[in-house]
Parts: sequence; structure tokens; C-alpha cells
Amino acid sequence: MLTETHLYQEIHEQPTVLATLLAREQQTAEQLAVAIRERNIDHVIIAARGTSDNAARYAKYLWGSRNRLTVGLATPSLFSIYKQPPRFGNALVLGISQSGKSPDIVSVLAEARKQGALTAAITNFPQSDLARQTEYVINLQAGLEQSVAATKTYTSELAAIALLSACMCQDTVMFDELQRVPSLVTEALVLGGDMQQAAERYCFMNACVTIGRGYNYATAFELALKLKELTYTMVEPYSSADFQHGPLALVEPRFPVITIAPSGALLPEMHHFMHHLQTLGAELIVVSDDNDALALARTPLPLPAGMPEWLSPLIAIIPGQLFAMHLAAVRDYDVDRPRSLRKVTETH
Amino acid sequence: MLTETHLYQEIHEQPTVLATLLAREQQTAEQLAVAIRERNIDHVIIAARGTSDNAARYAKYLWGSRNRLTVGLATPSLFSIYKQPPRFGNALVLGISQSGKSPDIVSVLAEARKQGALTAAITNFPQSDLARQTEYVINLQAGLEQSVAATKTYTSELAAIALLSACMCQDTVMFDELQRVPSLVTEALVLGGDMQQAAERYCFMNACVTIGRGYNYATAFELALKLKELTYTMVEPYSSADFQHGPLALVEPRFPVITIAPSGALLPEMHHFMHHLQTLGAELIVVSDDNDALALARTPLPLPAGMPEWLSPLIAIIPGQLFAMHLAAVRDYDVDRPRSLRKVTETH
Repeated sequence: MLTETHLYQEIHEQPTVLATLLAREQQTAEQLAVAIRERNIDHVIIAARGTSDNAARYAKYLWGSRNRLTVGLATPSLFSIYKQPPRFGNALVLGISQSGKSPDIVSVLAEARKQGALTAAITNFPQSDLARQTEYVINLQAGLEQSVAATKTYTSELAAIALLSACMCQDTVMFDELQRVPSLVTEALVLGGDMQQAAERYCFMNACVTIGRGYNYATAFELALKLKELTYTMVEPYSSADFQHGPLALVEPRFPVITIAPSGALLPEMHHFMHHLQTLGAELIVVSDDNDALALARTPLPLPAGMPEWLSPLIAIIPGQLFAMHLAAVRDYDVDRPRSLRKVTETH
Repeated sequence: MLTETHLYQEIHEQPTVLATLLAREQQTAEQLAVAIRERNIDHVIIAARGTSDNAARYAKYLWGSRNRLTVGLATPSLFSIYKQPPRFGNALVLGISQSGKSPDIVSVLAEARKQGALTAAITNFPQSDLARQTEYVINLQAGLEQSVAATKTYTSELAAIALLSACMCQDTVMFDELQRVPSLVTEALVLGGDMQQAAERYCFMNACVTIGRGYNYATAFELALKLKELTYTMVEPYSSADFQHGPLALVEPRFPVITIAPSGALLPEMHHFMHHLQTLGAELIVVSDDNDALALARTPLPLPAGMPEWLSPLIAIIPGQLFAMHLAAVRDYDVDRPRSLRKVTETH
């Protein structure tokens, strides 16, 4: 029974995990925000891999727009293999990792500490190698995640990033909006309840692309990763702008494109892009709370109304998680143990 | 005749273009290096799309290891759509674009200038909108590029990045090694002369992945983009480390994997990775100058001996360009005008 799998249960635990994180980790996030302010930090380097790297993409956009920080992704091989690390200067160096174990990520934080940079970790294991290298540790509070494909730790990582943004802004509206996330996630889980029917149609799909931009660039990447891990489909994520600089040539009639198009500043751009895809004959799967956007879809995946745009990635990934799980199930794959993978991946 | 196409000719013009750039642009690169030193810059933000974004990936690793700079990629939608740009602080903000025309990239540089940051452009059009926003302009010196798929402007962008690194280091060994690049590229073009035979085998390949790490992370991305643009194959690029954090599940017997594995610090890691792929039954296409690495391949794509590791991306992309061109030709596609694309893509 699908409902008895770890994956199904962990997807449905997300409202509880998010509420727990928001309740328990605000104090640590506030302390880190104070340290960022006191050290006049205007730049962040994040070391992460896989799902956590996708969470880092959200931080790039959120902290850039709300907190005016520039955020870059680290180059772990310069630390672990070339042994020629850059200077961090006055940056915050942040490691994001569910397990906190991957040696290449730990090596970036060890060097940051050696250089005297401000260091922090977002992890589900506050006693991990990664956490031990850092001054501030935000605990994901997700409980044990047993399915190989990360779901609850992904949204929990996003919530930690959003919480830190609110703490840096000291903005009560942002804190109020954050508190609404668990119930919005519950609504999204209900809306995605009959996803099996949608998944059947794509049982023999070999390849597709996922498109998101701005805050939801992260969502496109995370949905692509879930589809690859769980369903072994060739799925490549893009921003709508990058996609037009070359990869658009892939699109032929019936080529499936999954777009993440919630309400907000980017919606007109996504509308324009989806119309262009329609002229090329693409088959659109649309994740949105906007009726006009959903009307363009062969397969609409609705989101609840009333999402604050900056928090939409925490909710917009839910239909994607459910779609990937059900697509794996209609293909008779083991959703908890994808082939060739282990829960903790240690790369050097 | 393939030899009469713009693509074929532009691929073969690369040694001349590279020699021209190295001869004519050193002075500008030196002036920019002085400005970077005088302003104590330790951080670079690059705005770029498509092929130029792949060149930016090389800058991340090269400037990180040789010049100890941290390098991040910009988030153009925060400038052009959200209108909530981050503060650049004491960063160099660099635009890389063949045409210098894409409005979203220009918007990043316009904001950087407004904030008083040090600005520079690497472009084939020194009178372009992009160049007009910047204090320093490195001219790609590539002549008109008429094929939609960029080849000579890509290696010229890499050479500009390498030249700037040598100027920042003030290292005569690096300048000497740079001068050897045009003849190494010529050797690579000769070695790839009978690529058509290799391409035939992959005529009906639907999907593959490309793998590179460190300096050649950029090569994996650029090869994937050429294959998508020219041959409409689903190709996703990865670092060997990222690939193991999830996407490894895609690999089944006969799944094609193209690895970029030149001699250097990363070669032992790539060997280990390729052996693991063999146990899963993957079909390996290997780009390398190392005989042991080539021996693992179903299809070896040899590189010339004697490449300095830091410059290997300028040479390692050559067999990839030739492979993509010949694969398009055996599929009877128009190599100069891929479907749905134009030479200049203007995104907002």
C-alpha cells in the first residue's frame, strides 16, 4: 500500500514538521540574524548538494530580494580536491545538509572557520560533522527521514531560510505569513489527493523539462530531482529565460513541459512563455493557483489560494512531490528505495 | 557539404580567434586586473545566459583557485522583474554575452553602475548595450558568429577569463602556457577529424548525461548545451559529486554517459566514478588525454598531450563541439539553424 510507505507518510508529515521548526528554531535564527547585522555581512556562500542545493537556490532569490544579500554557491572541489580554496572575506558561509555528513561540504565549512568567517549550518543532525564546524546550527526538526528521496527535510530547509529572512528583516508581517504555511501545505496536500489519475497519463513518458523562475527556480530544480530519483525519467530544470537561450530547440509536438507558475511578479512572464510553448505544440503540466494559467494546461495541478509570493516555493513543491510519488507507483517502482541510491551520500 | 557550413568553419577558426584575443586584449585585461587590486575586491558577480553562463562556471573555479576570489552567478529576475536588487558591496560585477543585447543581463550591469560597483563586460560587440554600462570591456575578437550554436565565442570567452586570471597573478608561466592554447586547439581539431564514425553509433540516442568537475564542470555544461541545440537530445550536465546525490538512479544498462576526464587533480576521482558507472552497465564516452581513462570507454574521444590543467577546458570542449556537429549531421539536421532558435535571444 502506497499509504504505508515512508515516502507517503513523510510527505504528509510536512505541516507538522514545518510548525515545529517555526516554533523551535526562531531563537537560533534571531541570534544568527544579529551576528549577520553586527558583522555588516552583505554576502553569503552556501555549500550544499542534491536537494539541499535546491534549497540554496531559494536562498539566493529570497535573501537577495528581501535582505539585499548576494548569495553564491560554493565550489567544494576547490576545498576537498584541488586544495586551493578562495578567501571568504566578510561572508557568511552556510552549509545545508540533511545528514551533515558529506566530506566535501564539511571541508568548505572547516576552511571557513579556519579563515575566521561567520559560519552556520542548517541540518537534521545537530551533532553531525557539519554542525560541529559551525557557530550557529538551525535544526530541521524533521525527525528521522527514511525514504531516500528527501521531502520533509526539503520544505523544512526552505522554512529555515524563510525564517532567517524574517529575522533579518525584523518584519512582523513576514512572521505572520510564515505561520500560515503549515495550513497552506495541508490544503495543497488535499488538492493533490487524486494525483494518481494525472500520473497514469505519464506512465510511459521518457523525458520532460521543468520550468520555474525567481523564487520558484528552486521548485523547478527540486521537482526535476524528485522525478529523476523516483521515476528514472530524464528531467531537466530551467528558468524560462535560460530555456530560451538554446534548450528551446528540444521542444517538439507533445513534448511535456511542467511549469511552476504561482501568482506574483513573474506570472505575466510565465504566461507569455507558456503561450509560446503552446505554439510549438508542447504538452503543458501547470502548477498554479491562477485559473488562467491552469486553463492553459493539459494537466492542471492546482495550488491553494492566498499564498504569499515569497513563501510560494514551500507550497508549490507539494503537487510535484505527490506527482513524482504517484508516477513511481504507477510504474511499479519502490518509492522508498530508488535503485543505486543510499540515504546518505558521501562525496569527496 | 558540412565543411561549407558556418558551424564547421567557426569551429575551425578557433585557433586564430584565440591567438587574436590573446594578442589584442592583454592590455585591457591588465587594466582591469589593476582596478581589481586597487579596490581590494575579493568577490565577483557574473551575469550571463546560455553558453556565456557556462563560461562563467569556468571563472568560478579558475578565479577561485588561482586568484582566491569567490565568484557567484547573478539572479537577473531580481533586477528586471522583481525590481528588488541585492547590494553588490565591494564586488566586481561582470556581464558575459556574445551579443551584449539581452535586457535582463544589461539590467544587472545598469544597477551595478548605479550602486558604484566596479563593472566589466566580456562581449563580441564592444558597442553593445551591455558594454555601454561598463567601465572595462574585453572584446572577444571572434569576428561575426553566424551559426546559432556558439563555438568560437565560447572558447574566446574562456580565454578572456584565463587571460584576466594571468594578469591578476602577474605570472609569466601562466602567460607562456596561454600562448600554447591555439596550437593545442589545432591538435584537438586534428584528433577529432574522423568524428563522423563515432557519431553514427549515437544516431538514435534519445538521452544521455555529461559529467565534469572542477575546471571542467563548465565543459560538461557547454557540451550538454551544444548537444541539445544541435541534436535535440535530452542531455543533462552534472558534476560527478552532484550526480551521485540522486540522479545516479537514472543509470541503467547501456545508458550513455559522456565524461570529461583530462589529466590533473580530479582524474583519480573521475576514474573511481567511471568504474562505478561500469558496474551499473553504463556506456562510457570519454574525453581525455589519459590512456587509462580512454581505455574504459566504448567510444574514446582523445585530447592532445601536454595541456596545462587550468587551461584544459579550452581544449576539452573541442571534441564535444565536433561530436555534436557530426551527430546533428548524421541525423540530417540543419547545423547552422536549429529549430525554434535565433542567434540573439533577448530575455527580460
